[in-house]
This record gives sequence, structure tokens and C-alpha cells, in this order.
Amino acid sequence: MINRIFMNEMSWTSYQKRIEGGALILLPTGATEQHGPHLPMGTDAMLATAVAADVAKKLDAIVAPVLSFGYKSQPKMGGGNHFCGTTSLDADTLAHVLRDVIKEFARHGARKLVLINGHYENMMFTIEGVDLAMRELAYRGIQDFQVMRLEYWDFTKRETLEKIFPGGFPGFDLEHAAVMETSLMLHHHPHLVDMSALPDDGPASFPPYDIYPTRTGWVPCSGVLSPAQGCSAEKGKLLADDYATGVTGAIRKEFPNVKERS
Amino acid sequence: MINRIFMNEMSWTSYQKRIEGGALILLPTGATEQHGPHLPMGTDAMLATAVAADVAKKLDAIVAPVLSFGYKSQPKMGGGNHFCGTTSLDADTLAHVLRDVIKEFARHGARKLVLINGHYENMMFTIEGVDLAMRELAYRGIQDFQVMRLEYWDFTKRETLEKIFPGGFPGFDLEHAAVMETSLMLHHHPHLVDMSALPDDGPASFPPYDIYPTRTGWVPCSGVLSPAQGCSAEKGKLLADDYATGVTGAIRKEFPNVKERS
Amino acid sequence: MINRIFMNEMSWTSYQKRIEGGALILLPTGATEQHGPHLPMGTDAMLATAVAADVAKKLDAIVAPVLSFGYKSQPKMGGGNHFCGTTSLDADTLAHVLRDVIKEFARHGARKLVLINGHYENMMFTIEGVDLAMRELAYRGIQDFQVMRLEYWDFTKRETLEKIFPGGFPGFDLEHAAVMETSLMLHHHPHLVDMSALPDDGPASFPPYDIYPTRTGWVPCSGVLSPAQGCSAEKGKLLADDYATGVTGAIRKEFPNVKERS
Amino acid sequence: MINRIFMNEMSWTSYQKRIEGGALILLPTGATEQHGPHLPMGTDAMLATAVAADVAKKLDAIVAPVLSFGYKSQPKMGGGNHFCGTTSLDADTLAHVLRDVIKEFARHGARKLVLINGHYENMMFTIEGVDLAMRELAYRGIQDFQVMRLEYWDFTKRETLEKIFPGGFPGFDLEHAAVMETSLMLHHHPHLVDMSALPDDGPASFPPYDIYPTRTGWVPCSGVLSPAQGCSAEKGKLLADDYATGVTGAIRKEFPNVKERS
Amino acid sequence: MINRIFMNEMSWTSYQKRIEGGALILLPTGATEQHGPHLPMGTDAMLATAVAADVAKKLDAIVAPVLSFGYKSQPKMGGGNHFCGTTSLDADTLAHVLRDVIKEFARHGARKLVLINGHYENMMFTIEGVDLAMRELAYRGIQDFQVMRLEYWDFTKRETLEKIFPGGFPGFDLEHAAVMETSLMLHHHPHLVDMSALPDDGPASFPPYDIYPTRTGWVPCSGVLSPAQGCSAEKGKLLADDYATGVTGAIRKEFPNVKERS
Amino acid sequence: MINRIFMNEMSWTSYQKRIEGGALILLPTGATEQHGPHLPMGTDAMLATAVAADVAKKLDAIVAPVLSFGYKSQPKMGGGNHFCGTTSLDADTLAHVLRDVIKEFARHGARKLVLINGHYENMMFTIEGVDLAMRELAYRGIQDFQVMRLEYWDFTKRETLEKIFPGGFPGFDLEHAAVMETSLMLHHHPHLVDMSALPDDGPASFPPYDIYPTRTGWVPCSGVLSPAQGCSAEKGKLLADDYATGVTGAIRKEFPNVKERS
Repeated sequence: MINRIFMNEMSWTSYQKRIEGGALILLPTGATEQHGPHLPMGTDAMLATAVAADVAKKLDAIVAPVLSFGYKSQPKMGGGNHFCGTTSLDADTLAHVLRDVIKEFARHGARKLVLINGHYENMMFTIEGVDLAMRELAYRGIQDFQVMRLEYWDFTKRETLEKIFPGGFPGFDLEHAAVMETSLMLHHHPHLVDMSALPDDGPASFPPYDIYPTRTGWVPCSGVLSPAQGCSAEKGKLLADDYATGVTGAIRKEFPNVKERS
Repeated sequence: MINRIFMNEMSWTSYQKRIEGGALILLPTGATEQHGPHLPMGTDAMLATAVAADVAKKLDAIVAPVLSFGYKSQPKMGGGNHFCGTTSLDADTLAHVLRDVIKEFARHGARKLVLINGHYENMMFTIEGVDLAMRELAYRGIQDFQVMRLEYWDFTKRETLEKIFPGGFPGFDLEHAAVMETSLMLHHHPHLVDMSALPDDGPASFPPYDIYPTRTGWVPCSGVLSPAQGCSAEKGKLLADDYATGVTGAIRKEFPNVKERS
Repeated sequence: MINRIFMNEMSWTSYQKRIEGGALILLPTGATEQHGPHLPMGTDAMLATAVAADVAKKLDAIVAPVLSFGYKSQPKMGGGNHFCGTTSLDADTLAHVLRDVIKEFARHGARKLVLINGHYENMMFTIEGVDLAMRELAYRGIQDFQVMRLEYWDFTKRETLEKIFPGGFPGFDLEHAAVMETSLMLHHHPHLVDMSALPDDGPASFPPYDIYPTRTGWVPCSGVLSPAQGCSAEKGKLLADDYATGVTGAIRKEFPNVKERS
Repeated sequence: MINRIFMNEMSWTSYQKRIEGGALILLPTGATEQHGPHLPMGTDAMLATAVAADVAKKLDAIVAPVLSFGYKSQPKMGGGNHFCGTTSLDADTLAHVLRDVIKEFARHGARKLVLINGHYENMMFTIEGVDLAMRELAYRGIQDFQVMRLEYWDFTKRETLEKIFPGGFPGFDLEHAAVMETSLMLHHHPHLVDMSALPDDGPASFPPYDIYPTRTGWVPCSGVLSPAQGCSAEKGKLLADDYATGVTGAIRKEFPNVKERS
Repeated sequence: MINRIFMNEMSWTSYQKRIEGGALILLPTGATEQHGPHLPMGTDAMLATAVAADVAKKLDAIVAPVLSFGYKSQPKMGGGNHFCGTTSLDADTLAHVLRDVIKEFARHGARKLVLINGHYENMMFTIEGVDLAMRELAYRGIQDFQVMRLEYWDFTKRETLEKIFPGGFPGFDLEHAAVMETSLMLHHHPHLVDMSALPDDGPASFPPYDIYPTRTGWVPCSGVLSPAQGCSAEKGKLLADDYATGVTGAIRKEFPNVKERS
Repeated sequence: MINRIFMNEMSWTSYQKRIEGGALILLPTGATEQHGPHLPMGTDAMLATAVAADVAKKLDAIVAPVLSFGYKSQPKMGGGNHFCGTTSLDADTLAHVLRDVIKEFARHGARKLVLINGHYENMMFTIEGVDLAMRELAYRGIQDFQVMRLEYWDFTKRETLEKIFPGGFPGFDLEHAAVMETSLMLHHHPHLVDMSALPDDGPASFPPYDIYPTRTGWVPCSGVLSPAQGCSAEKGKLLADDYATGVTGAIRKEFPNVKERS
């Protein structure tokens, strides 16, 4: 069981050796959320896991079990929490899951964690989870635990965007179940993409405010915020390479003691 | 994407159709917990998922994403929470995850859920999670949501135990990372079992009380509560068949409207 | 007020002297729960208290006020929480009561606590309460606080079972308001047992799963899980002796500095 | 078991009959708190229970198990939470215990509850507990549940005060473990009062503000806020009569359907 | 921005200098609560803030932003929470706000805080908030943080009461939106008092118990618990002087290192 | 007290009349957070309140008391929570304050609320607070309560940005205590801006990830994320006009029944 990437596939003795050797923990956070009729509901979890796995192929890093459930989907970010299938957690549930597992990683002896988020709505609650965990770690006198926290898409290179969107990048705002996520899924999990179901709703257009209860009419019926036409596995590979390279580079820079994967 | 088994691999539109057609939801709950040097830490989650998947191959049922983290491991049940790698949640974190996702399944229109638990320590907290969810559903006027809750090993047939333990079944108490779990993993995930690492600690012997902080000396160093020698994939298949048959039978009996898988 | 057994009957100055002298604290946890038409609803609390009092007559120990309310009754354990009279707490309420009082005992200067549980459903939540308390004590730098936690019936000797059940012990599972509890009550609180009301429902028979909302039809109308016929005060004394002896012995072994009662 | 007063001594079938007949529930709330060297730490719980029992001897009422642990003792009210032996709950623990049991009483079919508080510091948290319970009862459509909430000493008659304090009543503020409580204990539980240990510290004198951490020097070393000299069982009886009469009268007035005890 | 009184009007650099110089923090706590037809709903918050500002004009002290929302209004204290406009917090929400901000003040380097409460119902929850904060500060090793906690009206001098109520002081109990608060508002915020709307309901008269749901008929329709006739700005000034002098004196006595305002 | 704008300055009777007449509630949410050496720490609260007040001068709307404390400042948004003076709440504290007050507004009879956020870090927690409130309102059968939620800067018109940043708008990301906020404060509260203290740190430059504990070296010492040079009261007025006009327009569109201010 040596050199496995996924924590849940490792025995505790293998894991312990890795941690004692200074291995980094990568924690992907996702969601179970509608992603249009053509993508599976686990897309965010799968893509965050894929980024983590790609990093773990380069560095001495262990991929912890993904958080499969995320914060409530918002209309402008993921279509809204009224869709059938979207399965979300309350804010404090999510923050507490993160708090608990981070404290456990620290107990194991780990001192570096990279939290790779694949669901935009999770962002602030992962911040809270990290803060709660580090506060309690400090109570126990652990001051040297460090967390890098990121949304993977922030590592997209400008030149990649230019290649993927030759007509101009419309912005990350509407990239839900659209060209980028679909391309990434075609690269990582092609058998889970149903290209025949690709909707062609026009892009969603939102006012500069939210209304609750959600005005469901603001959101395309398909749940896709902008058309995914133009997606391809090749584009997915470009993106995946950006994330693998970018995140790995960031870790090398900030956590210089992390070893390369042997 | 029709007829997929796993919720996270289904599109929301497929899922919605299935739910509208009366599909049952199966929610496996596991743990990330030491299982000796020969089994992976995800064993409980993998086995609960495997039972769920076997049921979903027979009935019109959807397997929701497994809960990969469980309640704190106890010495007499899983070796104790002091092992490196064991990664556990506080009681209310676990109960709240269950509460939240159950409420979401009900919002989707599901009215039947089978909660398949693979980690003994989770039991009472899944009960609390179910109770909290059903209380809130009642506030919203939803009174017809039903949950079947089970530990899969309770479906082991007497004759299977006799075949697996020809010298007499020592009881479920010490069956942590022992013959039954190892056999099941050899059946379901043989590549994740390291038979060369099988420890041969004598069985653990516990007094009729707990002590906290854990007396770690009570627990075999390997984390295995009784020897796994005698395990085999064939025995694993016998057990897996019991669970698939038993759980499916229970569902057919209690939820007679659930359809066979088409 | 010297040498009283019950904390609530002691003045703080007497208590302080006892604690400074190394006295042990015994905390009984019970429930307010239906126990058939012949036993009072406080049975679990009374029996846990009785065990504690018997121990405190032998060792330098103080019996703290019993927790009269416990976790929600489960059909297979105590008949279910749908009975009139059963009065239960949410999981986190119960765990927090334990957390709070344990922290207070530690503040008083106590370093050893024995938690004597008389209601099966409480078990996991007492574990959580202990864990939460010890975590916070560690934050304050208190690392030497120890808790022994037990269900009193686990101290029943095999020979006692053979005497009480000459026809063979049917197992602890259905021993709710049945021979053992009724015998113990006849021994400790005979005026609270109404032998004329002893029901003779056949024993309950449960499938290997739970259903929520509770299938109330699974539970005998009386709330008794198996017949109490055959109970007697003599049998109760045998059991009480096992518990007094067994728990006292366990304490002497694990906490050797605890003094005998002077 | 007919016509018992204490809920925990009643079988569920007797309780059910009483509730169906319209019996009132009386819930005493106390504390485990230093009460000087002459009174036991359970004084507040015992006195609240005694008031409840006296009422239940007159009206068709059931005394629920007392809450033995209360909110943190305050210097000006009960000497402060720094005393050894005082064992207190966090605010939300206490409020949640009340919330949970009140909801259970309502589930049983009770519609009237009298909460008899014997520990001043509990007051606002019993208010919160009642409010949380009634909010949730309203979610379930239960709007007719009523709670009377009281501190028993507010029923002391002026003429009684004049008899007990012929030199003038110094006010309730310093009546902690002083003349009134000691007299009541001499009346209700004389064997638990150690008159030889009566301290004669002068009365405490507090500024019009609190300081945290508690300025322990403000509080007499004995924990008694004003001298108990002058206490007697006769005075205790006068007070007990006021409370029995006063509370019974209030219930008759506000809940006119409650029957007299048969 | 030097020498400003209000924290929210200071830059962080000015605040830091003040804190490093030993400035005291004053935290007013109020409510948004009906105060009759003649006083604004922010009365409690405004008066607590006014006391704080008066103190900060004498001592080296900084007034933190007032807590504008308080605990649920009680009939006998503030008319009850059924009035339109009264906007209250749950107990733990209020306690947690206090806990959080107190911990932040300690992080800033402050070591002395005066909590000036203007809403009676807040009292016990500010105590809990302080306790929760100081417990966590102790976890971080901060043991020298001190809090003075007060209700401002407790600083009213006897001679002032005699001047204001020449016919005898009826007691603080019914002083909600009555002579004292109205006079103070006439002194501090005359433009917010509508003297033409002064109601002349007779004084409220309450029994020695509470009933929930609130018996709204017990409370004068205006929400005023006793007539405010006789109020005047001059009386308000007498009271304001008592509070400024009294609180300042208490601080000088208890926190002798606090400097005079330069 | 007719036609006041601020809820805390209104009597309950005036407020009730306004609510019965259909008035809208505006709830500003801010923070107490460093805003460089030239702006006061209450900037976010003051600006959100100013927008609300400007709207309330046009529409039949009432400005509720601002939430003066917000979520923990993040390095990339507000400099980070390590600055002296920044005073933040835990996630669930903030969400619960919102939940509680929103439920109260609904109890008063209000059915429309506009939540005007002035502190970026609050965003997701206001969403959670709204969701928690609306969930509980639904339990009480209130389904017609609507919330508009907005960050005021999202109403900045493109032409205004072009006027304010003739050299090109660098983006909202670094606009903390920079040109926009300083200009707005010069417009609304000029006496609270210390132009002599304007720092000229170069703009902050952040990598596409966070590190915890905060790498404080990433943030300019002044706390200002980009230079405020070029700010002016005139620019502030342009922005204020955008917000007043934009938010008013949004309300008119979405809540057409809201009346103009009379």
C-alpha cells in the first residue's frame, strides 16, 4: 500500500509513515449540485478531487476524502438551491466538518494542509472552518499548523482563457456547468458527460442583487448559467494542466519543505 | 446517464426522473479509521457503499454519496481515536450532516431512505440525525417520510457464520479489521488488501468498562481487535450475498412500493 | 455532615474536605422512561443511583446528583420514544450536561470520576460528553483527569445469570422492564413495584433494522420487551451484589489510590 | 401506584391516566451550589421540590424530576461560582434541558406546566427554555400549552416577613443560606442542617457592579451572604405555608380547570 | 482623529495608540424595544451609550459600538415581547455576540472592559457572554483581562430619588418608559421625546409569577409600566450626573491605573 | 415622531403605523474594521447606513439599527483579522443575529426587507442568516416574506467608474479604504476623514490562494489595499447618487407596492 495517493485507500501504518516523513494533506471540498442535464451532480467534488490527485502525483501529498456535500447553491453561482438533486449543508454543519477533520489531521502530526475548493459557495465557510480549527489548535499549543486555501479556477492562466474562449472570456461568474467545467469533466471523467444533453439556453443575466425566496425564473431551466457549446476534452486538459502546475507551484513556494513525490 | 446507481454520477434531470418514479435513496455512512496494517482506512465507508450498490443493482434505488467521516473510534469497537489516521467528527457535526441531507432528500420529493451504516460508533448519531430531520420535516408538514436504518452486519445469516467460523463465532464485538471485514474487502476491493501485512496479535480482551483518556495498552498495537487469519474472498462473497439479499428483502417487505431495478 | 454519601446532602465544606482527601466522584445517569405498568418511570435513574450508593458504602466516594433525563428511548432498547411519560433529551443537550458537570468536578479538584449509566440509549452520548469535557480540560492544562465509564449490567456474573435464568439467559437485548430490572427494583425500591400489574405480553421480536417514524406495533403495548415473570427480590439482591462488587473491584484495580470508606 | 406525587415514582400507565384527566405538571428547578457550612449543596433543588410537593398534595398535579444543576452561581446571589462544590451549567445547556423536557410534556398531552424555580440565577434561562419550547410547539401547531413560571420566595407574605424578621427584613438580596433558607430546610429536611456549623460572618456588602474574574474577597468565606442566626423550623413552616398556599392559589386562579387532589 | 470617544469614529492607528496607552473600553448594551408612544425604541441603547460617553469624557476610555439588539422583552420589565417594534435576540445569540467582541478586545491588547447595560433583560446573558469569553481567553493563556459589568440605574443616589420622587420612589420595577427614562431622554435626546404622546395609564400591577404565552392584558396598552408624568430634563440631568459620577468613581476605585482623560 | 427614518428613533406606535401602511425595512450590515489611518473603523457600517438612509428619503422605508460588527476581515478583502481594532464575529454569531432580527421584523407584520451590506466578508453569512430565518418563518406558515440582499457597490455605474478612475478602474478587489470608500466618507462624513493621514503604500498584490495563519507581510502596513490618492467628496457624491438611485430603482422594480416617501 506504499505510495498510494488517496488516504482512504491507505492503511493507517502507511499513512503514519507518510505523515512522519512530512507528507502534505490535500483536502478537496465539493458539492452535490445540479450541473445541467449533461454533467453529473458530483462535478464539483470530482473536479476538486482531480486537481488534488494531479498535485499528489507530483508532490509528497495525500488526498483526504472529499467533502461531497457543500453549502447551499446560490442562483448566481450554481443555479440556486431549489433544484431537485442539489443537496446542501447548513453553514455551521459545513464549517464544523472542516473544523473537526482539520483538528484530526493536526493530531496525526500533519502540519501542512491544502484545502482545494471546487464549489464557489463553500468559500467563506471553509474560511470559518479553518479559523475554528486553528483557534482550538492554539488552545492545545499547536501554533505551527498551516493551511493553504484555494479555489482551483483561480489558477487558470490568461493564455489558457484566450485559447478556450477565442471570442473573449465572459468571466467566471456564469461558468457553472458551462465550457470550463464541461471541458474538465470531458478530460477527467468523459463517461460521465452526456454531450447529447448539452442545453443551449442563452446565458443567465442577473441583477446586482439577490431576492429570497429565489426568483427561480431568473435561472435557465436547465440549470446551466451559460452555454457549454465549445467545450472539449482538449480544453479540459489545458485547464487541468494549469491547475496541476499552478497549485503545485504555489505549494513549492509556500511550503518549501514538502518533498517531490518519490 | 439513465440507470446509473450513484447519485453523484447522475445528472439532476435523471435523478429527478428517478425520484418522481419512486426511487429509493440509499445513504451509506462510514468512517476514516484505522483498520490494521492490511486494510485501508476507508474500509467502513467502502463496505457500506458496497452493500448499498449491491442493493441498487436489484431495486430502483439511488446510492447517495457516502459519509466518509464518522464518529470518534472507540477502543472496544474500532481500536480507539488515538490512532494516527483515524479522522472523526464530533457528535453534533455528524448528526447535523445527516439532518441536513435527509431534509434535502425530502425536498427533492423522496419519501423513503435507507441508511446503511458501516461504522458501529455512528449508530446512535445516525439515530439523532434522523430524529432531527424528521422533526423539522414535520414542522413543514411532511409526515410521510420514512427511514430504514441498519448496520449491515446485522444481516449476517447464522449459517454463514457457521461456515466462516467453523470453530465457533467469537462474536461481533471484536470483528474490527478481522475475518469478516477482511473477507468482505477481499471480495469487493481485493487490490486494497495487503495480505502480507496481516497481523497476528492475539485477540483484544476488554474489561466491562471504559477508561478515558484511553488506556491505549488495552488495544493491540496493530489496531486489529482479533486475528484476520482465515479470511478469504469466498467468505467475503458469502457475507456480501447475505447483506445484498437481506437488505433487499427488508426493503421489499417494509417499502412494498419500491420497484425492482429495470 | 461528615461521611454522607450524596453530594447534594453534603455541605460544600464537607465536600471540599472529601475531595481534598482524594474522594472519587460517582455520577449516575438515568432516564425518565416507561418501564411497563409495574415499574416506575425513574427506574433507570434509581438503579444507576443504587449501584453508585452501594459503591460509595465501600469506597471513599461521593454520589453526584443523578441525571434524571436521558437520550430518546429506542424501540429495541426501551420501547421507543412514543410512549406517554418517556421524557428525553436531544443528543447535544445530554452531552452538554455531562460536559459541564465534569468540568466543574475537575475545577473542584477531583481527578477521578466514575460514570455509572443505567439507560442504554445514553451510552454514546456519555462518551461524547466525556470527550468534550476532557478536550476543554486539556485546554486549561488539566491532563490527569480520568473517567471510568460503564453500564452497570455489564458487571453481571455468568453464574448469576444462570441462577436467575435457569432456563437459559435470553440476552440483554430484551431486558427492558423485564426480570432483571424488576428484580433489582424489588430489592432496592420494593414499594415502587406493582407486582399486580406485571404484564404477560410475549417477548418482543425485532427485525435487524429500525424504521422511523417508529413502527409502534413492533413493541408490546405494555412497553415491556420480555416478560418479568420470575422476578424476585432475592434475584435482585444477587444482581445488586454483582454490581457493587464488580464496580468496586474495577475501581480498586484502575484507581488504586482511592481509599476504602472509613 | 395511583395518586403518587412524583413522576419518577409513577408507572407510565398511571401517569398517562393522570395526564388524560387533566393533571398539571410541576417542574422544580434548583442547583448544586454551596449554601454555607450548615446547609447541603442541594438546598435550592430540595426547596423547589418541597414547594412542588406541597402543591401536589392539594391539587391534581405531578412533580417532575427536579433539575439538580443550575446556572452559574453569582457572587451577589449565591456567593459565586468559584466555590468548591458548586456545579453549574452553561446558559444554553440549561435552557436546552428545559426546552427538551417541556416539549416532551406537551407530547404526552399535558397542556399546563408550573415551573417552580429555587435558584435565582436560573430565572432568565428558564424564560429562554420556555420560549424555545413554545416556539417549537407552535411549529407543530400546538398553541394551547401554558406555562406558569415563578420563583417561590416571591410568594412570601408581608406578615410572615414581619414575624420572621421582627427587626426589619433586610431584603431578599442577601438571603442566600441565611435565615429563610435555613428555616425552610429545618422545616423540610432538619437532618440535613448542621446548626453547629452556623457561621456568623457579618452580612456581605456589594458595590453596584460586578467584576469578573470574581473578586472573591467580596464574599464571606463561609459562602453565607448574611447571618442565619434566628432561623427556626417554626419560621420555616410559616414560609412553607405561604408558598404552598400562594402557589396553589395562583394556579387555581390562572388555570381554573385544574382539579383538587382527590 | 486623536481623542475621539467613539471607537467606530477612530482610525485603527489612533485606537491602537490609545489601547497601548492603557485606555479602557466601554461597551454599552441596549435593546430595540417599545418604550411607550413618547420615547423612541432605541432608548435603552441610547441611554447606555450616553452613560458611556459621559464616562469617556472624564477617563481615558473608548466607547465601543453599542449592541442595539437585546434579549427578549419581558412583561414585568419592558412590557413583553409581543409589542410591534420590539426586536430581540435569542439568549445564545446575545451571549455569543458579547463573547466574540470581548475576545477581540483582548486580542487588541485591552485588558479592562466596562460593560454598561441599559436593558434589564440583558443582564444574565451579558454575564454568560463574559464568562464564555473569559473561559476562552484563559485557554489562550490570558488571565489578566478584567470586566466590570453594571446596570447604570444601580448608580442612582438615594438623594436623587428623593428629589425626583418627592412622594416616594415606587421602585425600579415599573420604571420602564416612565419618569426616569423619560427624564434621561429629555436630558440627552430631547428631540426624540414626544411629550404630547405621554400616556397616563395607571401603573401596571403584576402577580408574583409569569405566564407564557404572555397575558398581554396585564400590560398597559401604551407599553408604559408606570406614568411618566413628572419627568423633566432637569431630573434627567440629576440622574445623568449620578451615573457619570458613580460609574467613573467605580472605575477609578477598581481599575486605579486607568488615566484621566487628557 | 412621524416620518422619521431610523427605527431606533421612532416610537413603537409610529413604527407600527408605518409597518401597517406597508413600509419597507432596510437593514444595513457593516463591520468594525481597520480602514487605514485616514478612515474610521466604522466605515462599512456608516456607508451601508448612508445608502439605507438615502433610500429611505425616497421611499416609504425604515432604517433598522445597523449591525456594527461583521464577519472576520480577510487579507484580500479588508486586510485581515490581525489588525488592532478590527472586531469581528464568528460565522454563526453573525448569521444568528440576522436570523433573529428578520424573524422579529416578520412578527411585526413587515413582509419586505432590503439587506444592505457594506462589508464584503459578511456576504455569505447574511445569505445564511436569511435562509435560517425564512426556514423558520415557513414553519410558522409565513411564506410571503421577501428579502432583497445586496452589496451596495454592485450598483456603481460604469460611467461613474470611468469618471472616478480616468486611468482605468483597477477593480473592486483592492478597493478597501481606497479611492471609493474614502470618497464616499468625504461625502457622507467628512469630519471623520483624516486626509493628512492618507498612506501611499503601493497597492497590495495577492497570490491566487490564502494562507492561514495570515501571512501579514502580504498586506500593506497601513491596512489600505490600494492608494486612496485621487479621492474627493465630489467623487463620493457621484457614487452615493448611483447607490441611492440604483437601490431605489431595484426596490421599485421588485417590490412595486412600496410607496414613495410622503
